Amino acid sequence: MAEAPFRIAILGASGYTGAELVRLIASHPAMEVAALTADRKAGQSMGAVFPHLGHLDLPPLRRIEEVDFGPVDLVFCALPHATTQAVIAGLPPLLKVVDLSADFRLEDPAAYAKWYGGPHQAEALQAEAVYGLPEFYRERIRDARLVANTGCYVATALLPVLPLLEAGAIDPDEIIIDAKSGVSGAGRAAKEGTLFCEVAEGFHAYGVGRHRHMAELDQEFSRAAGRTVTASFTPHLIPVNRAIFATIYVRGEAAEIHRVLEARYAEEPFVRVLPADVAPQSRHVRGSNFCHIGVVADRRKGRTIVLATLDNLMKGASGQAVQNANLMLGLPETAGLEAAALFP
Amino acid sequence: MAEAPFRIAILGASGYTGAELVRLIASHPAMEVAALTADRKAGQSMGAVFPHLGHLDLPPLRRIEEVDFGPVDLVFCALPHATTQAVIAGLPPLLKVVDLSADFRLEDPAAYAKWYGGPHQAEALQAEAVYGLPEFYRERIRDARLVANTGCYVATALLPVLPLLEAGAIDPDEIIIDAKSGVSGAGRAAKEGTLFCEVAEGFHAYGVGRHRHMAELDQEFSRAAGRTVTASFTPHLIPVNRAIFATIYVRGEAAEIHRVLEARYAEEPFVRVLPADVAPQSRHVRGSNFCHIGVVADRRKGRTIVLATLDNLMKGASGQAVQNANLMLGLPETAGLEAAALFP
Amino acid sequence: MAEAPFRIAILGASGYTGAELVRLIASHPAMEVAALTADRKAGQSMGAVFPHLGHLDLPPLRRIEEVDFGPVDLVFCALPHATTQAVIAGLPPLLKVVDLSADFRLEDPAAYAKWYGGPHQAEALQAEAVYGLPEFYRERIRDARLVANTGCYVATALLPVLPLLEAGAIDPDEIIIDAKSGVSGAGRAAKEGTLFCEVAEGFHAYGVGRHRHMAELDQEFSRAAGRTVTASFTPHLIPVNRAIFATIYVRGEAAEIHRVLEARYAEEPFVRVLPADVAPQSRHVRGSNFCHIGVVADRRKGRTIVLATLDNLMKGASGQAVQNANLMLGLPETAGLEAAALFP
Amino acid sequence: MAEAPFRIAILGASGYTGAELVRLIASHPAMEVAALTADRKAGQSMGAVFPHLGHLDLPPLRRIEEVDFGPVDLVFCALPHATTQAVIAGLPPLLKVVDLSADFRLEDPAAYAKWYGGPHQAEALQAEAVYGLPEFYRERIRDARLVANTGCYVATALLPVLPLLEAGAIDPDEIIIDAKSGVSGAGRAAKEGTLFCEVAEGFHAYGVGRHRHMAELDQEFSRAAGRTVTASFTPHLIPVNRAIFATIYVRGEAAEIHRVLEARYAEEPFVRVLPADVAPQSRHVRGSNFCHIGVVADRRKGRTIVLATLDNLMKGASGQAVQNANLMLGLPETAGLEAAALFP
Repeated sequence: MAEAPFRIAILGASGYTGAELVRLIASHPAMEVAALTADRKAGQSMGAVFPHLGHLDLPPLRRIEEVDFGPVDLVFCALPHATTQAVIAGLPPLLKVVDLSADFRLEDPAAYAKWYGGPHQAEALQAEAVYGLPEFYRERIRDARLVANTGCYVATALLPVLPLLEAGAIDPDEIIIDAKSGVSGAGRAAKEGTLFCEVAEGFHAYGVGRHRHMAELDQEFSRAAGRTVTASFTPHLIPVNRAIFATIYVRGEAAEIHRVLEARYAEEPFVRVLPADVAPQSRHVRGSNFCHIGVVADRRKGRTIVLATLDNLMKGASGQAVQNANLMLGLPETAGLEAAALFP
Repeated sequence: MAEAPFRIAILGASGYTGAELVRLIASHPAMEVAALTADRKAGQSMGAVFPHLGHLDLPPLRRIEEVDFGPVDLVFCALPHATTQAVIAGLPPLLKVVDLSADFRLEDPAAYAKWYGGPHQAEALQAEAVYGLPEFYRERIRDARLVANTGCYVATALLPVLPLLEAGAIDPDEIIIDAKSGVSGAGRAAKEGTLFCEVAEGFHAYGVGRHRHMAELDQEFSRAAGRTVTASFTPHLIPVNRAIFATIYVRGEAAEIHRVLEARYAEEPFVRVLPADVAPQSRHVRGSNFCHIGVVADRRKGRTIVLATLDNLMKGASGQAVQNANLMLGLPETAGLEAAALFP
Repeated sequence: MAEAPFRIAILGASGYTGAELVRLIASHPAMEVAALTADRKAGQSMGAVFPHLGHLDLPPLRRIEEVDFGPVDLVFCALPHATTQAVIAGLPPLLKVVDLSADFRLEDPAAYAKWYGGPHQAEALQAEAVYGLPEFYRERIRDARLVANTGCYVATALLPVLPLLEAGAIDPDEIIIDAKSGVSGAGRAAKEGTLFCEVAEGFHAYGVGRHRHMAELDQEFSRAAGRTVTASFTPHLIPVNRAIFATIYVRGEAAEIHRVLEARYAEEPFVRVLPADVAPQSRHVRGSNFCHIGVVADRRKGRTIVLATLDNLMKGASGQAVQNANLMLGLPETAGLEAAALFP
Repeated sequence: MAEAPFRIAILGASGYTGAELVRLIASHPAMEVAALTADRKAGQSMGAVFPHLGHLDLPPLRRIEEVDFGPVDLVFCALPHATTQAVIAGLPPLLKVVDLSADFRLEDPAAYAKWYGGPHQAEALQAEAVYGLPEFYRERIRDARLVANTGCYVATALLPVLPLLEAGAIDPDEIIIDAKSGVSGAGRAAKEGTLFCEVAEGFHAYGVGRHRHMAELDQEFSRAAGRTVTASFTPHLIPVNRAIFATIYVRGEAAEIHRVLEARYAEEPFVRVLPADVAPQSRHVRGSNFCHIGVVADRRKGRTIVLATLDNLMKGASGQAVQNANLMLGLPETAGLEAAALFP
């Protein structure tokens, strides 16, 4: 590529999604890392914080206020939920931003206030933000200034279910999402609950009945159905680094569901609908930007089991973010994202 | 215990459930191992096949036909599904047997033939067999000659659901069981699908829509409901050695469901109903004979999520088998089964 | 056992070794839990902190100063290194104590000061403390008031090497210990380095050349050899919950080494020397109090590879502590410790 | 790249190294897959055998005799050890071959016969084969017709040790290699020993004192030292998919060793010598073609611990093979191999 690469800043580069963004940009044909921030680790090299990136020529970690955003073309914001609103409000007003937090995903300020326990701090930005699921908002993302990247659990549910709601192929009142996540979704902060010994050799559900991602599900499901949809959603923790796997129970015919999904995703580069009756495996998308979807008829007549899996750090976070950025920068949507999964 | 211990034979001692039976009997106050069989490993010591048992004074592995069943009080039969019928038919006619295979679990020979692809080879024994879930068939098990141990997946579903069907607390037409199993449930036979690299760092569903254990579920659910019940059931593989975890979606009120389960299991030694809204973790029952059950209200009104977990080799197989044997031999039901879980 | 059980207090019951002590005492024929302390979790139930122990009838977690030590027969002290000295100095002066920390393991106050960066705070107690490796200090432990439990890494090295030094079967100047530990050895404190994602799917060495446990190794190796011994010791982290595995390279003949070890441990209940050329596996001692030792001739003449493994929470900590307590209380040394390993 | 890509055949594409070659070639700027063979799975699609590659446009699996090697530029031979000799002898005589088996690694037919239990079946080819460690045989590899890819264990030992032997920085008679491997090194064949339950939650040594890779070590160490060298080598199995980690104990000064290695690898693209006293972690090279090397002074004077790690399927097999092929085809040595590691 003869032209100069786009210059990228990553805010919150000391977390797993930040590191994954650096990994992706390092082999991206049209992007380069211009700035990295991490408040508590400012002054350190990225290689000290993430030795797997130690061979790359990267700028040091800085505090956000030390960054000159003048020559920056696009910012990935990978900061913790709730701290993001003020940060993005403080960036130069025309700078393109892909935000990986949950802060700008809910269009309705009231929904935000209800689920996050307080009013939104940047409602004007919220009004401007485009929901970042490229398979459904591609054209709006191309023109967006601020894109709110879809969450990893939610992306795994939306990709298989939205086309079914749009097509009227399933009953909107009978959607149950049994979701399972790898541990990297919880981030790199030191917490008892994500210690190796609290996760390995076991399995459990958490946040049952009250997980915040439900607000995002409601919003998108309802829009697709043209009416209010409330789905059941139960998150579990799998003792693996990377994965989201959703087993989705719906009322609808398997053959039609498979047909709708195959047609809907025939031209999509990152969503693969498997042959009928084939169940996906999370290990087959590990490290890649793919989402694999399977459809199997339930033994109860008129019911179907839809299974979907993706890598929470890739299609569920940083890979999707790069996909959005490619659209915003006028690049080929798949640039830098074509690597196959790492198996085993 | 002053009296001589009961003498136990284990058929199929070279598998994981066989080894687990030996482990349990080794610390059982009223049982001792009298004979061990393993056709392909006949002649070897148990310590060679399972070094974790190498310190025990055990008889060598023999072929079944080499065993003198005269002094044996009870047989655990841990042979592969389908090979068991002929073996048990060939044992001395009054010998007590706990069978860990699926061969005698289905009362209806037609159901057996449908799910297992051929007629049952020992229908008279089938008619005599008692279904081995002590919490529901305790009195019949005490008097039984042949007990068909409940399967691990099925036990994890029956324990939370049967009381709800019996009490009419849930809609029998709306039961979805999203089940997850550790890998030891697949046994020690060398197969590509259970190689470390095919299981670790990933998650997948298998046998979706057609798993054989559904027949057992149907039988017991239907009996409890007093009508035909067909539940959805999806098995998944977790990258852990031991665990079954079931997330069960039902139509019914959480408060009533919790009340029914608490009342039903108040006196049961091995079933613990957690406080309302607390989800269990499989690691907290690992290596123990406990089943932990949690109840959480779904966000959809009138729906509830019931979560249950047990160790597939213990309460799901060998621990439950010893519990049945205790009943059959007139011993305290909890003898040899009181160890707490091994965590972490 | 007709007599009243000994009453046991556990200080630091909210850590993994504390929980393991509770698990062991729960099935111990002559001990019962009289008091549990955990400063930061005081007021909580043990079952809330460790749900796998939730079925037991246990006293609540208290602060140490709230405990009435009057009726207590023996204290297990499972507090962090360095905080222990003041606590034990403050206990009733005749109370028996097994300390699981490193605080009283070094006889020489100067060695303590060098390795731990400051003077010992309870030198009189240090002078009284007996080093708690029962296979070597059994008689002194029987009469001891304060026993300093051997560390997990160190126990795994001492058990195979001490007899060889005592017998003059190896060159004291050529001992290399390549040691590997499971993650529970690092405790339950929330630290980035023991998060699941920092440990799973990988392997690394840590503290190379400077691990504190070397002081303890030096002390015991030197005593056994009758001269100063300095061994190489490299700790690594294995992505498992429980295990220590030591691969030990020595100069000496394999046949003699195997003979010495077999003879030395022929009567020991918890140390098993495997047949010549058989390597142990950590999974075969998981959850048990056994140490398995293997001896294999190196391909370099006159060199031998000695391999040893134990469960860091059992023979490396809480199991060994109960073994010491059994001796101190005049109980059979194996009481409550005879469970076979949990495999798989 | 305007020119037509080189056309590549992979023999033995149904194993893990075969799949890894396909993954690498799929994103290689100058190679394309022209043929795939797998005798037992002939007729299947690669996507059926390895679903993580299902999105690629690949030829079906065929039997070797069905392949037209006319338009093929280079063959990767990823067949089991010992079956390879006849296969390669039967290929068109000028076709370039990178062999990933052990069959052509030993220059001395007598050494081969001793370690592999029978005479070599293609001694003429053996005489022609070039040992495939690019960092040491780069120029010969450029001109080679047949390259014998270095084994994964051996590469991890050779990269840190060869420069030290060449420089005379260590005593050739005092080299101990404590090596640990991930499970994918054992391949995809179904064997009891690599079942999940036999590997997870544990650690063990295997083949102690007699592993075949020692012959390769001896050959290369001896050449570098200019005299016969016999090192100790103990392989262990880590419960991870991908990794080799070697802890190497040598007699020599740490400062000099570090200096020699830094100088030797300053210009090498795939070998990174970490700062003094920093130990590598296998997870930081997972999925990449890097080898990370650390140097730490032992506490015994004049001794040093050298630590090296790589991904056994990448720099230990398929990545190294592509590196060799790049050299043989006149391509940039790093083409298609620049991806950073996948962490976590």
